[in-house]
Formats: sequence, structure tokens, C-alpha cells
Amino acid sequence: MIIESPIEKNLSSSMRISITTSLASALHSSAKTTRSLSRPKTLIPFSLSTMAAAAATETPAPGAPAAPAANAATAAGREAFRQSVVNTLERRLFYIPSFKIYRGVAGLYDYGPPGCAVKSNVLSFWRQHFVLEEGMLEVDCPCVTPEVVLKASGHVDKFTDLMVKDEKTGTCYRADHLLKDFCKDKLDKEPNLAPEKVAELNHVIATLDDMSAEQLGAKIKEYGITAPETKNQLSDPYPFNLMFQTSIGPTGLSTGYMRPETAQGIFVNFKDLYYYNGNKLPFAAAQIGQAFRNEISPRQGLLRVREFTLAEIEHFVDPEDKSHPKFSDVADLKFLMFPREEQLTGKSSTTLRLGDAVANGTINNETLGYFIGRVYLFLTRLGIEKDRLRFRQHLPNEMAHYAADCWDAEIECSYGWIECVGIADRSAYDLKAHTEKSGVALVAAEKFAEPREVEKLVITPSKKDLGLAFKGNQKMVLEALEAMSEAEALEMKSKLETNGEAEFQVCTLNKTVTITNKMVSINKEKKKEHQRVFTPSVIEPSFGIGRIIYCLYEHCFYTRAGKTEDEQLNVFGFPPLVAPIKCTVFPLVKNEQFDTVARAISKELTSSGISHIIDVTGTSIGKRYARTDEIGVPLAVTVDSTTTVTIRERDSKSQVRVKIAEVASTVKRLVEGQSTWGDIQWDYPAAHGSPEEENNPEENA
Amino acid sequence: MIIESPIEKNLSSSMRISITTSLASALHSSAKTTRSLSRPKTLIPFSLSTMAAAAATETPAPGAPAAPAANAATAAGREAFRQSVVNTLERRLFYIPSFKIYRGVAGLYDYGPPGCAVKSNVLSFWRQHFVLEEGMLEVDCPCVTPEVVLKASGHVDKFTDLMVKDEKTGTCYRADHLLKDFCKDKLDKEPNLAPEKVAELNHVIATLDDMSAEQLGAKIKEYGITAPETKNQLSDPYPFNLMFQTSIGPTGLSTGYMRPETAQGIFVNFKDLYYYNGNKLPFAAAQIGQAFRNEISPRQGLLRVREFTLAEIEHFVDPEDKSHPKFSDVADLKFLMFPREEQLTGKSSTTLRLGDAVANGTINNETLGYFIGRVYLFLTRLGIEKDRLRFRQHLPNEMAHYAADCWDAEIECSYGWIECVGIADRSAYDLKAHTEKSGVALVAAEKFAEPREVEKLVITPSKKDLGLAFKGNQKMVLEALEAMSEAEALEMKSKLETNGEAEFQVCTLNKTVTITNKMVSINKEKKKEHQRVFTPSVIEPSFGIGRIIYCLYEHCFYTRAGKTEDEQLNVFGFPPLVAPIKCTVFPLVKNEQFDTVARAISKELTSSGISHIIDVTGTSIGKRYARTDEIGVPLAVTVDSTTTVTIRERDSKSQVRVKIAEVASTVKRLVEGQSTWGDIQWDYPAAHGSPEEENNPEENA
Repeated sequence: MIIESPIEKNLSSSMRISITTSLASALHSSAKTTRSLSRPKTLIPFSLSTMAAAAATETPAPGAPAAPAANAATAAGREAFRQSVVNTLERRLFYIPSFKIYRGVAGLYDYGPPGCAVKSNVLSFWRQHFVLEEGMLEVDCPCVTPEVVLKASGHVDKFTDLMVKDEKTGTCYRADHLLKDFCKDKLDKEPNLAPEKVAELNHVIATLDDMSAEQLGAKIKEYGITAPETKNQLSDPYPFNLMFQTSIGPTGLSTGYMRPETAQGIFVNFKDLYYYNGNKLPFAAAQIGQAFRNEISPRQGLLRVREFTLAEIEHFVDPEDKSHPKFSDVADLKFLMFPREEQLTGKSSTTLRLGDAVANGTINNETLGYFIGRVYLFLTRLGIEKDRLRFRQHLPNEMAHYAADCWDAEIECSYGWIECVGIADRSAYDLKAHTEKSGVALVAAEKFAEPREVEKLVITPSKKDLGLAFKGNQKMVLEALEAMSEAEALEMKSKLETNGEAEFQVCTLNKTVTITNKMVSINKEKKKEHQRVFTPSVIEPSFGIGRIIYCLYEHCFYTRAGKTEDEQLNVFGFPPLVAPIKCTVFPLVKNEQFDTVARAISKELTSSGISHIIDVTGTSIGKRYARTDEIGVPLAVTVDSTTTVTIRERDSKSQVRVKIAEVASTVKRLVEGQSTWGDIQWDYPAAHGSPEEENNPEENA
Repeated sequence: MIIESPIEKNLSSSMRISITTSLASALHSSAKTTRSLSRPKTLIPFSLSTMAAAAATETPAPGAPAAPAANAATAAGREAFRQSVVNTLERRLFYIPSFKIYRGVAGLYDYGPPGCAVKSNVLSFWRQHFVLEEGMLEVDCPCVTPEVVLKASGHVDKFTDLMVKDEKTGTCYRADHLLKDFCKDKLDKEPNLAPEKVAELNHVIATLDDMSAEQLGAKIKEYGITAPETKNQLSDPYPFNLMFQTSIGPTGLSTGYMRPETAQGIFVNFKDLYYYNGNKLPFAAAQIGQAFRNEISPRQGLLRVREFTLAEIEHFVDPEDKSHPKFSDVADLKFLMFPREEQLTGKSSTTLRLGDAVANGTINNETLGYFIGRVYLFLTRLGIEKDRLRFRQHLPNEMAHYAADCWDAEIECSYGWIECVGIADRSAYDLKAHTEKSGVALVAAEKFAEPREVEKLVITPSKKDLGLAFKGNQKMVLEALEAMSEAEALEMKSKLETNGEAEFQVCTLNKTVTITNKMVSINKEKKKEHQRVFTPSVIEPSFGIGRIIYCLYEHCFYTRAGKTEDEQLNVFGFPPLVAPIKCTVFPLVKNEQFDTVARAISKELTSSGISHIIDVTGTSIGKRYARTDEIGVPLAVTVDSTTTVTIRERDSKSQVRVKIAEVASTVKRLVEGQSTWGDIQWDYPAAHGSPEEENNPEENA
């Protein structure tokens, strides 16, 4: 489950995208861009990191007023940067609009070969980092889900977006999108707006997510907003359920939905999983799988789609003990956090030590903090830039009433700060909802070493007296008495003892009745208990895999000068962990001997399980490098003799000379992270670039 | 896409299960059971392999007459064996009926933790064995599919099963299931049936799949078959489409379906993938993903489900050259094949050398043969028993009209021989269907080194003369003339030259017209061509992952005697490759020193990426072994000193003593297949079993 609870009144459809209203502010706060040795971004003429140096202020939080538009050049630059990333991604088949030959379907995308490999690498690392290292119980549940499950979770009733229809053509729009677009457009295009008007429009944008159907409808009317293409009148906003509906079995009587998240599959299995774990808490279950949301009008390319891969963790924990035994492993991590307080007071996100944030109560508990730390490590190891990743705490109006605390991992890209992982302490809400609907108790028990004597408040209504006093309403009064909280019961007890009677509000009757001494006895009694039975809390990190991958593409992309001044070469600087192909094998020139060596190396790489491509086309070596830099292959083996070869590193373009027999093991060490390129440069003699690369003016710089 | 083409008139819903009508014949042909050293099945009191020794005859092919029921004890044994596998699977959460707390949904299952790990291992190996080793282009397309795509593929019109309804309650049944059950029941329960009646019922069972709705309805009427529970009248059979239907977008006007197979996602991307491959053939694309079939009444547990994982390969090849450069790598493989001829003449499957089967034309071409060989290697390396795996060729009535040849990998389990992989040469059918529907040419081109002069037959109708002769029908005649095959045109040319006129059948007019000399000229002309443009053939291996996994469970399961004579211990003898957990770490007794060593070993294993469990509960070591044998953990590390530990192998229960520092690397070698248990026994001293295991009478046998 990701972000907003399906039970919140006007929950938006999926992960929130906080598109900034200010242009400059969309870029990150720090003018400093970290540059690692292995990724020489000092050479980069075009990457979003370098562009960010121009930006000074930070994205305002959703609640805070937006800064005025500052730097249109930067906005245009952002757009151009995105175009150049997206063009490369499409041209090299990282993704393909689905069913393209049939003119496609909005919001559906295929992963082509390199994209599919990146996704598979990200998921493998997720399994290693979370499931294996934390000993989680992974499950795999179907996408087709019967109505009763999603009725219990709240999705059938509340998983909606507000929609308006063009009254003539029937075209549908998201009501909040139309209103937001109208406000932004006005702010952008009318520089001479009165300050009060600017403030009003900014306020509308900031409070959009909280507006009811009536409020949205009123604003649309007030501003005279019409259908974008036809300028026709729009209907009033009404809720549209975002789940894909279907029918299970042949009779047509059994409604089903394609799951909007994977979490419910775990909740309904709680009892079995708890048993599997030896009836012990805490434990975590995990699931990777497809989720489906029938967006009204998908936009923003790969960020808001109708089918996507989620990876979700449900960590079940005793609500009375949310400590985590491994918290000390992450306590010293320092990274950008954006606590509620900072957002509400218009401050920026700030670098905090995780241990301190938990100790001073900024983060609610150790387990939530532990997962925030693990998510930070996961994302940065994938290649997300540290200073373009922040953990933003939900504001009170974003959070479900039952949630204890929620943080989003937001990654900055050309669209602004994008929520990619939600980490929520959802308390006992989900298990309680399914317990109630199914009648199966999804609870845990703490067995006491020795039975404990506990004092319990026992409420004993007298049916006879209640019957005499309330007749047909007896049952409602009786149930209300039994349902009193301890505090309410104690208050009534004291009133009955003092006055002999007490006023009592019965919700189901919608009135206040008078309860007398005779009607109920309230007493403390001592009982022996052998165990404590309770509904566990759940802490839920939920990963939007497609969004993480898209942000990774932007963070890894850069261009560098080619042979001529005009030529710009595209590079995806993926870390070896996520690179779709780890290595290329190129005979320097077309030649049977070199081909034989290349094929032998290729065979060795295959048996070491290293994905690679062999290119014996005899195209110029510079072109072959450029072609594979563009899909982010980190290493290139060039066969230029029958005894040794060169290995070239993509970002530095530096080369070493390695004996043929040692190629596969050297590549394996690099790819699996046992050695850095620096280590390899230490171990092997440097090699000069091939003639074609040396011609490159940049090469000699 | 798996098995029957969606275009065949009465195609059945999914992978065929050839449930044998004979009881004994369900077991495999050979009385010999192969036993490997590492999997000591000589000790097995209960496994399907040992039971098979009782069986003598082989499953008849679908077309052949069934042998009479022979051995009811064996049938009961099969049922008991299955129960004991399934009970273990359910109890240890290999799978869980989905949404169990809501009383579940027929045909939907979750993979619980060990099942999920097995699945993930099977898919990783599939990627290594096919995608990586064969350099395939992997793609990942959405499940939600617009109607137009499945209209082109034929699924919207033809992907149906015939259904009958209880006329009073509305309950639905598969018509063929009811008829089959009726026939089998009669054969089983009425031993004194006349021989003609027995033959008739067997004939009905054998020809069920070919029956039209009318034929099925007539048989149901003739036999007086009523609804199973209520005995009410049944409706006539009518087609029910097996796709889950939904609606894409908010308007409700755009119909979509959950894909019934993953193949179409590859076909519609052919153009891009061909370009990605440098416009060269052959190449293969692959996809792993969910597929959905809304079965009328799912039965047979995990074998016929409503949502399942498919792994499909589409290998595109020049129809004029279906050789395969790596065929020699598999040509010497020998395994059970069941060619068409043998099935039609009532013979058994037979061990053939793959190279011979291709050479003598039993298998249509080298590429198809290569994939059959690779599938054989894939399945047997997973742990499928060689003598319970056969490759059965489709009979003419099973195959689509356009298919060149089809073979199914069938695995024998307690349900009979189950189709788990379909390997079909589907010719150019799918690409042509999408070319026609989309208007985008899904073709390949062979560029000639030098332009070739070709003689082409040019048909030039004279519109004027055709118009004068046929008026309103002119267009139809013209089109028919242009559509003539070369042979037809040459025949007409000769008739026109001889007689000055020719009779000509125009299908679209449904009549024969007379064509004269004036109306058309037919001439051979010489043209220069620079390339040959053609629609590639596709060879499609399609894997039902869930079925393979279920068969693997049955093949790997056995029981052995426990401490007492009555006690039977369950073991899943998974090869390390697929084992859900590779290793356990047990301190022999509860003791802080041993715990510390165990935790240190666990940390080493984690950083080597080896999934393991550590159990410090202090339960008896024998119980801990039994508990983990039951989920198929191949290796157990028992900490019984602070310098060395024992490593125990699951199937032989033999142990070696290894220094603590060498544990992780030793386990890794075994798990990754670099060493066998025999190698390890050679390298390290034997250790005696722990006291508790030594008490086991079988241990000393």
C-alpha cells in the first residue's frame, strides 16, 4: 500500500507527485554537486546536476506558499534535459509505449530489453537488501481479487478520484488537474496579477488535495473553467473508482478487481505467516508484483501509469515495543530529512543524523527509523544521488487518522520532487479491518512466563431493568453500555455512586438516556491472565519500482562532447549493479584471430553469469563505445592482440591492459563490487586509448 | 502462447492435461527407477517413483484407445501420494489458497515463503539458461490489453470453452468435463458393460476435444446427463470466453482484457525488436509474466488455475533457413520422445537421439529441435526425473492449420502426463495477423550483396474491358485476377493463348465467369531486386511455470522412516539450485558460545548471498533436521564446537567436519554447483551424526 490511506475521505489515486509551482525551486537546494571519482561529472556539459547549480531555493512543502517564478531558462532547460533523456530511453528501447502499432493506450508502457534488465537488477537487489538480509517472508499473491477483500480494505468505497465530464463529448478529466492547470497557467502568463490574486491561486494549489467534490465544483464554476479542447461546459465533480473491475467465474455474479496494491495479499495471510514464523513478533512479509490503477487521464510519462510494479513490505510489530535490534547499524547515517515542523514553518529540508531524529521524536519509533535508513541505503546504492533524495514527513492533513507516522522518500527529477517510496506506521488498522470483515481474528499473543493477576473493569448491565425502562430500545442501550471505554465507565461509576443516576449518550439511538444504579453494575475485578492478545501494528515501506527506475535514469544520464564540437554523446552512468549489460567484447578490427579471442572471452563471461554483448561488426571502435555508453555498459573489453586485451571504464574512459585468462574474473570482481576501478588501475598497467578514441579532443583534456 | 492456436475452431482453454483413462497406465513405462547417489531413493518407502514399478503400460496418446482399468490399488496409491505431497505443501506454506479467510476463490493460489523462493529460483535459472545464454531480448509488457490486439490474435472470437448451465440454479459447467466424467464413471462402475459400449465411451473420451457445440449437446442429451448436484436439466452448450474483461479509462467505452498469454506483447513489438537486433534474423525475444484465464470450473488444484506465470520465448527465423548454429551442442542428447506416428499406431514413447530425430524429419527443423533439447536440459537440471519426462508431438487434429510442427514437454505426476511446456513452430501466422489488423508491416528483409535479376509474373487487368463485361461486379473480378497464385496465372495464360478465353472462379461472387484475351495480360517480366522481404516464422517455447513447479514438488518428494517405526518423515529432495533455503545453521545445544559462532556463520552466508535460516531454539537436533528436510533445505551446519562444525547433506544424511572459516565458501561451492557432495566428502573428514540422529535406526542401516 502506498501513501494515503484508502479510508481518508478524498484520497488521491496513487503516489503523489509534488510538482513545484515555482520553476527554479524545482531544483535542489544545494549549489554544490557531489562528484565521485568514478563518475567524472566535471566533464558533463548537460546533466540535471549541473543545471541545479543555478537554482538556489528548495521546493516548498505542499502546505507552504510557493515561491514566485524565478528562472524560465531553467524551466526550459529542465524540459530539454528530460526530452534528451526520454529520447535516448525510447530510441534504445528502455521503454516502449505499449501496443504502439495500434496507436497505444495512455498510461501503459513496455520495458524493452535494456529497461527490462535494469528492472530485473533493481528487483534482485531489492530481494537481497530486504528479503534476504532481513529474513523476510516473501509471498506472491494473485492480481485478481474478490470484492469482499477490497470492501474490507476500503478501496471499493473510497479509492476514487474526482472527475468532471465534458457535457457534450463525454470526455473525462480529473477535476483537481483542471483546477491546478488553470491556476498555474494564470500565474505563469499574467505577470501583473494583484498580489491578493497570486496568493489566492497559490492557496488553491496548496489545498487542492483537501478539497471536497463540492469545493472543487464551486471553484471550477467560480473561475469559469471549461473543457480544455472543446471549451464546453463541465459536469459537477463526482467520484470515479480507480480500480479495474472484472468478473470472476462464468456466472457474472462475482465481482472482482485487479489489485490496486499488493499489501492486502499479505494482510489476509497474517495468521498463516505468524504461525510460519513460530508465532513470534516482530516479523516482516514482502511481496513484489503488479498493481493496477485505472487513472482518469494519465500524464507525466512513466510516473503515473495504469499498471506498475510495486514492492511492498509489511513489518508486523508489537505496538508496545517498536524498538529494532539492528537500529544501531543505521543510527549514524546522515541525510536530508524534511520533518513536518520544517515544512509548516516554510524552512528547507535539512541533513539530520538518523539516530538523533529518532531520539528526539522527529521520527516516531526505531523500527520506522530503521526502515528509513535501509531505504536510504537501497536507493543510494542503486545510483540515486544523495543530495537529490529527501525523506519528507507527511503533514497532519496528508495522513490517515489511524497512522502513527509517515515518511516519503522523494527523489528530485525534472518533474520536481517525486514520491518513490512511502514508509508508514499504519498502526493496527489493516489487520483490524480484515478481522472485522472476515470474522477471523488476525491477532498475536504474548505468552507470559508466569500468569499475571490483572485488575479488569467489568460492566454488567441488568437486562431486566433496561427492558423495563427502554422496551424496544433495550438492545441498543445495552450494547452502548458494554462498549464504553474504561474512562467512560469509571466516570459513570462515580456518577452512579454520587447521584444514583447518570446521563448517557447512545449513538445508535441518537439521544441521551438516563441510566440508574439498578440498570448496570461497574466493578473492578481481579483475574489471572496467561497471555496478552493484541492486534499487531504494521510498518509498511512501499516501493514504486517504475518511479525509482525513471528517477535513476535521470540521475545517471549525462552528455559529453564527441569528436566534433557539435556532437554530444549520451551516457547512462549506471553503477554496475543496475547496468543492463555489464560488459562488451569488441575485436578492435575485423580479423579472424581477434574474433576467436573475443568468442572465447564471451564464453567465459557467460559461464560466470555476466550479461554482455559481443560486437564483431568492425564498426569503428569509437562508435561502438558510444553506442554502448548510451545504454550504460560500464566496461568494454577490446581485443587488440591475442595475449592481452584492454578494459575500458565508461565514465573515466581510462583503460587498463589485462591478460586474456584474467578478463572474466576481473570483470566479475568489478561487477560484483569486490573491486573498484581504482583497485583495477592499481593492479594492471594503464593502456592508451585506441586511435579513434584518442582523436577525441576531450580524451586528451 | 501455449498449445492450441486461438484460431482453431474449438480450442480448449489452456494447457491440456491428458488425464489417463486407465489407472495403471498413468504411471510411467519403465519398471526401472534411476537412483542417483546423492538422492538415495532406495531408502524411500513412499514416492511416486517406487510406486511406478508396479505399472507396466504407458499412457495412451489422446487419439489411441484407452487400456482397461488394471490396478485400483495403484490409483488409490497415487491419490494417497498426492494427498501427502499436498498436505506437506499446504502445511509448510509452499502455497496457500488465496483469500482463505474469506473462504477463497476457486483457481487462485498464493505462493507462501518457500514456494515463492522456489518460484524465484526457477525463474532466475530460466533467465540464465535461456535469456543470458542465448542472448535473447527480454521484454516486460502490461497485463491490461486493449481489445484490438486480442481481436487480431483471435482470442476475442475464439478463446472459448463450451459451457452448459443448470437451467434452474444457473450454475455453470464445462460441457466436455461433464461428458468425460459421465463416460469415465460408467467405465469405472459398470464392469459388465458390453464391449461395444466400452468402445463407444472410450471413443467419446478420445474425441472430446474435437467435438462441436452441437455434437457435445447431442451426446449430453443422448446420455441423459443432468447437473451433478441438483440433477436439473442442462442448457445446450454455448461458448464462454475465458478472458477476464475490463474497461480501460473512465468513459467505459474502451474494452480491455487481462492478457491470456504473454506472447502478443512480443509480436506487437516485432518491428522495434528487429531494429534493436540490427535488422538481423534470427533473434529471440522472451517474456516472463502473469497470464489470466477465467476458467469455468477450475479443478486439479495447482494445475488449472485462473492466474499463472508464463515464461515465453518467440524465436524469429527466416522460413527458408531454420538451421541453428548451436544445434550440435544438443544433437547427442537422448531422451523420451513420443512422435505422432507412435501415438497413432498405439506404440509407446521411445528414447531417441535428438540429432537423429531432426535428421530423419521426425522433428521438423533444427531450430525446433534445438529448443526441444534446451527445454530437456532446463527441466532435468531443475530436478525433473528423466524417465518421467517425454516430448509428445501434436497429432494433426491438435495442431493449428498454419503450424509447421508442435511438441509438448509432458511431465508425469499423480494426475497423469501433464503438458508443462509447449514448443511450436507457428510459421508466420501471428506476425501476419497483426500486420493485417494494424496496417504496420511486421516483416524482415534479406539484403542481397548484389542486386538480383528475377523473373516475375505480372498480371495486368484491363479495367475498361472488365467494366464493359461485368459492370457492378468489375471490382470483384479485378481483385480476384490480381490475387491469382503463380500457378493459376500460368494456367490462365496458357488457356488464353490457346482458346482466347478461360473460365474463372470468383469466390467473392460465388460464380464462374469467362475471361477473354482482352481483359487481362499475363507476362513474365525481368526485374532487379535488392532485397527479399518476408514475414519471419516464429518458433515458440512456452513454459507454464506453476505446472513445472508442481511436478517438481511431486518428483522431489519422498518419505523416510523416523525414530519410531510408525513415524514417517517428509523430505523434499530439491537440488540446491531450486531449494527455497540453501542452508540451516544450528547450534547443537543452547549455549552462548555456540550461538556466537552460529551468528558469525550466518553473517558470512548473508554476505555471500546464500539464503539460510538460523535456529537457536534448542529443540532437539533431530527435530530441527526433520523440520528443514520437509522444506527441502539441502545442507545443515551444526555448531558443536568453537573451531569446527559439521555440515550434513539432506538426502544421504552423511556429515563432514569443516573449519568455521571455510563454511561459507564450502556451502557456496555446493549451492552454485561448483562442487558435488562427493567432492566435499573427499576434501573433508567424515563426521558422525549427532546423538539424536544416531538414535535413528535408519541412520545406521
